[in-house]
Amino acid sequence: MISKKGLSSVPGFKFAGITTPQKKNQSKKNLGLIYSEVENTYGTAVYTRNDVQAAPVIISKKMDAQSPYKKAILINSGEANAFTGKQGIIDAELSISRLSELLKIKPEECYIGSTGVIGFPLKINDMINGYNELIQSLKPESDLEFVQAIMTTDTRPKQASIEFDLAGKKVTIAACAKGSGMIMPDMATMLCAVISDAAITPEMMHQVLNETVEETFNCITVDGDTSTNDTVFFLANGLSENEPIKSKDKNYQVFSLHLKVLLEYLAKEIVNDGEGITKFITVSIKNADTKENAKKIAFSIANSPLVKTAFFGENLNWGRILMAIGKVNTKMNCYLIDLVLNGFLIVNKGELETDPQKLEQVKQSLKNRDIDIDIDFNQGKTGIRIWTCDFSLDYVKINANYVS
Amino acid sequence: MISKKGLSSVPGFKFAGITTPQKKNQSKKNLGLIYSEVENTYGTAVYTRNDVQAAPVIISKKMDAQSPYKKAILINSGEANAFTGKQGIIDAELSISRLSELLKIKPEECYIGSTGVIGFPLKINDMINGYNELIQSLKPESDLEFVQAIMTTDTRPKQASIEFDLAGKKVTIAACAKGSGMIMPDMATMLCAVISDAAITPEMMHQVLNETVEETFNCITVDGDTSTNDTVFFLANGLSENEPIKSKDKNYQVFSLHLKVLLEYLAKEIVNDGEGITKFITVSIKNADTKENAKKIAFSIANSPLVKTAFFGENLNWGRILMAIGKVNTKMNCYLIDLVLNGFLIVNKGELETDPQKLEQVKQSLKNRDIDIDIDFNQGKTGIRIWTCDFSLDYVKINANYVS
Repeated sequence: MISKKGLSSVPGFKFAGITTPQKKNQSKKNLGLIYSEVENTYGTAVYTRNDVQAAPVIISKKMDAQSPYKKAILINSGEANAFTGKQGIIDAELSISRLSELLKIKPEECYIGSTGVIGFPLKINDMINGYNELIQSLKPESDLEFVQAIMTTDTRPKQASIEFDLAGKKVTIAACAKGSGMIMPDMATMLCAVISDAAITPEMMHQVLNETVEETFNCITVDGDTSTNDTVFFLANGLSENEPIKSKDKNYQVFSLHLKVLLEYLAKEIVNDGEGITKFITVSIKNADTKENAKKIAFSIANSPLVKTAFFGENLNWGRILMAIGKVNTKMNCYLIDLVLNGFLIVNKGELETDPQKLEQVKQSLKNRDIDIDIDFNQGKTGIRIWTCDFSLDYVKINANYVS
Repeated sequence: MISKKGLSSVPGFKFAGITTPQKKNQSKKNLGLIYSEVENTYGTAVYTRNDVQAAPVIISKKMDAQSPYKKAILINSGEANAFTGKQGIIDAELSISRLSELLKIKPEECYIGSTGVIGFPLKINDMINGYNELIQSLKPESDLEFVQAIMTTDTRPKQASIEFDLAGKKVTIAACAKGSGMIMPDMATMLCAVISDAAITPEMMHQVLNETVEETFNCITVDGDTSTNDTVFFLANGLSENEPIKSKDKNYQVFSLHLKVLLEYLAKEIVNDGEGITKFITVSIKNADTKENAKKIAFSIANSPLVKTAFFGENLNWGRILMAIGKVNTKMNCYLIDLVLNGFLIVNKGELETDPQKLEQVKQSLKNRDIDIDIDFNQGKTGIRIWTCDFSLDYVKINANYVS
């Protein structure tokens, strides 16, 4: 269902990504723009819940309050414009007002996002000096340029799309994301842009985006650290001429299902490109007493440095998984659980597998890149599935040296 | 005040540490014993709050319920006897009943502790076969042998003592601890044994131990992971003949103060010997709205992989400290804070220091082993001070390879 074709598969949008004038000597693009050619394009977004909110988050929220229409998403990489005081707010507003003038749209029809080093202000003059080139570069086929422009420590661009039939009309949703480190989104994610040609009201866009983010981007963690700049933008231009989605009816469900498939794919892609990753780890919790406990336990396992380094070392160290379950202090009975690692039953209703031959098989399976941890608590009816990666020497090297 | 003299400075106790018969080919001691020669020696302990509790924790709690008197503490290293099912309980009880027979004391006068690999049962026969040698080795001066026997990935033995005058009598408290990884004690710590010649009732021992642990061992973290075996044992034999401490009077305060100095020293020693440490980091929070928020924020900073790797890299990356403050989501106003790093004011009421020369000075100070992070929230009256270490390449190497 998922296609590797990216943002360009949605009609009515143009994309650009450039290197700003002062940074021409660097190889990487650092300024990207998505532009909708359709007059009545709706926009919505979900943002980080970190108490420290970057200036672009504050300003994009302000634009949300002023208009449901959004025609442009401007994103820079390099400087996060977070914790930059009053100047950060002035810079973010200036960047939007100049861009909207040149695009001949209203400022409140612009979103802005930033990613990079916290505490570093925008190089606002350099950005604005790049606007003419940026706008001239806008093309329907330039999605990759945009995605490259928003990357930081990502090792590869991440975008995808999905097409489906909605009551007789072909609808496309496409999305791109950047991730890598400082990844444990809380009700939002790293920078992500979702676009669609569906006809859907702003209220339903907001609802479907929030629901889907909760089950996709909010279910991943690289290092347990929540960024100050996390944002998912979502634009829909209605070009597919489907009967507009106005309530949580059958068409909403169809749209929601496909959006979830797309964003789950991208969420996993973020983990798959996590800093220093050598293992892609899926943690599934079943039959826990409450959703909250299931989530706490899943993230306790996924964020435990001891669990993560053990998988990096391909060490059969399931005791650390049990430690991470117990330290959450949910008061569930840990001695009822089944623990299945890569398909092998290691703990059966609290009793350990002791057959050395079988344990050796499990150990061999840890050489796989994909690791599956399935835990059945056998004392409730709720669960969760989340994704994470291991903790490698490269994670430490990258983050000891990168100023982010 | 603190003396490097260890457990042996307290009269009335003997110590031993041996290598059990089957492990004679390994260089490290793995079985240790503290024995009190005084008939009426009281004992108390605080234990891990991890939902997964090791068999020795369960059994020592049972002994607490049966008698306030404790004459022996037996600790093995290598196998944690955690998540070892019914056999783990049987083994722990057997080890105590055999030891108490040989020592001619009651089983309920014994504490037991284990440290090592979760899920690995005690090598119970080997342990019991070592008891005669262990008991024959008991000597007042053999404290170092005991401390060595309880070490795992610790790189050095950790013990100390403190002497003081208590209403005209000389009182000594001594303690030893083992730590290293899986260190973020929750209302208890890694294995620690405290002994004293003070006269103090079991109720007051329990109270002073709990209060002191909360402000010392519960204020450290190496990796945010809470062990299944954490225990602090405390024995007092009354030989100093001070007027017994029976209530929270002035003498209680004097005792409490000195116990705190001693355990704070050992708590810092555990961090200083944290796995792969290159930086010793003190995080101080002042003028926050509630103690709970101050604690959450301090530990969010101390456990953030991005903060820890930045200090390992000696990178001036204070933005990550702000990220870690904000991700706790306390709703305190982050734009009122002062952030002082190694004595340099970096953020002043939410506004950044931008003088490149001053920032360069701060950066140079990061080459020090000791790092001080002082944060004033300027919006309340409560605070906390905790200690942690950085996240180095060696932490990953140690934990990718060690089965713990």
